[in-house]
Amino acid sequence: MGKTGILFDMDGVLYQGDTPIKGAAEVVQWCQHENIPFLFLTNTTSRPRTALKDKLADFGISITVEQILTPPVAACHWLQEHDQGSVALFVPKATGNEFDDLDIVDWQTTDTVGAIVIGDLGSAWDFSTLNTAFRLLMHQPRPHLVALGLTRYWQAEDGLRLDTGPFVKALEYASGQEAVVLGKPAKPFFTTALQLLGLSASNTLMIGDDIRGDIDAAQQCDIAGLLVRTGKFRPPDLLQGIAPYAILDSVADLPAWWQAH
Amino acid sequence: MGKTGILFDMDGVLYQGDTPIKGAAEVVQWCQHENIPFLFLTNTTSRPRTALKDKLADFGISITVEQILTPPVAACHWLQEHDQGSVALFVPKATGNEFDDLDIVDWQTTDTVGAIVIGDLGSAWDFSTLNTAFRLLMHQPRPHLVALGLTRYWQAEDGLRLDTGPFVKALEYASGQEAVVLGKPAKPFFTTALQLLGLSASNTLMIGDDIRGDIDAAQQCDIAGLLVRTGKFRPPDLLQGIAPYAILDSVADLPAWWQAH
Repeated sequence: MGKTGILFDMDGVLYQGDTPIKGAAEVVQWCQHENIPFLFLTNTTSRPRTALKDKLADFGISITVEQILTPPVAACHWLQEHDQGSVALFVPKATGNEFDDLDIVDWQTTDTVGAIVIGDLGSAWDFSTLNTAFRLLMHQPRPHLVALGLTRYWQAEDGLRLDTGPFVKALEYASGQEAVVLGKPAKPFFTTALQLLGLSASNTLMIGDDIRGDIDAAQQCDIAGLLVRTGKFRPPDLLQGIAPYAILDSVADLPAWWQAH
Repeated sequence: MGKTGILFDMDGVLYQGDTPIKGAAEVVQWCQHENIPFLFLTNTTSRPRTALKDKLADFGISITVEQILTPPVAACHWLQEHDQGSVALFVPKATGNEFDDLDIVDWQTTDTVGAIVIGDLGSAWDFSTLNTAFRLLMHQPRPHLVALGLTRYWQAEDGLRLDTGPFVKALEYASGQEAVVLGKPAKPFFTTALQLLGLSASNTLMIGDDIRGDIDAAQQCDIAGLLVRTGKFRPPDLLQGIAPYAILDSVADLPAWWQAH
């Protein structure tokens, strides 16, 4: 067996809200000391990686932004791998900065692109914007449709708000074209993580608290899933017909488990 | 066998664009003379029934508006049958008039309804409007989600434009709730037609030019489908694995076929 790497889910594994999981900082230090390649995977698109890095630093976890894989970063990598020419971004301004290395075009003044990227535009969505994305999609040859996740909605201060997923579904249905989704639980997100680590699926572990979004999704890509009993974990999760490769009480147990295997 | 009724598709069966199909007017007169119950079924929501009635009159076909079943009329009937209380309409103003018999509420000032109806709002769709529909849908008990068809897009003068379908799909995905679709090829549309005719499926024929939207859809409801070789009919349609109950060169052949059966 070659070198083994680790994909960490963040929220629920390393911390819960504003509280660190006991022992998480030591586990990351152990990875660094043992030269174990790792990446932190998150579906968060609302905050840049620098903000996530700062949050981890507050918990005593010191990493580089390159060790955090978010949907925009994965999408940018995927687009570079699938060299498709110009890209139209339907994403918030803050997210757009992650795409600086690509040939970004203004969708208000172009009618053919190689790819369109859909993110959480929120209240900037209107008929004209969605219809422009649709018309670009219908041009031959068809551009790629890249989605920064398929989250349905989120809880804002004034109530529920539609997230990226519903607008992606609208465009998929209208165009008859399936989106490439960069975000858990979609395969291209995990595949991109493996490429960035330079490891094969069989030499990688995914550690997460979500039986479906982390464990089942990783195992669909032949990555062994380690479920932790923290975060959103609930005992009935184990009755869903999904068998994690291993179950740990918390991420703090990882080094002991690792040495036993 | 009891009395038999007929459901007519309109465009492609009775006329093609602005040209009547030869013999169509005589077939409708034959139905009227023989006291055969019939309804005209169309997915058109952009024009009121009075306009469709006037168009038919120009072709020598004289019927009442009650003999035309459009998605808004079917939706109104379906909502009355499923007595759900107040209704929020996300439809164009012209379409809204068909719902005058229901308890319509202003969705800008309410947060609970018994049903929401989604039509082709076009450029009146914006984030706030779609999000309002979504929030209404998420209230417990869940209101009905009623769609005036699932058309993907249409050809406007300046290019393609998103129709009702993509917005319904966005709401279905966001809420996890399936829409009741009133429009071909969805079953509730045909079921409503049968209720209005007062006939059972086995005593009803559907005559249409669309092997999927008319023939297969009707036959899924146990209504015998008569395919005509006019309108959008193309010979490869017969290689789709769908067996129409009968195939006629045109609607003009209906009386002769009827008498032979």
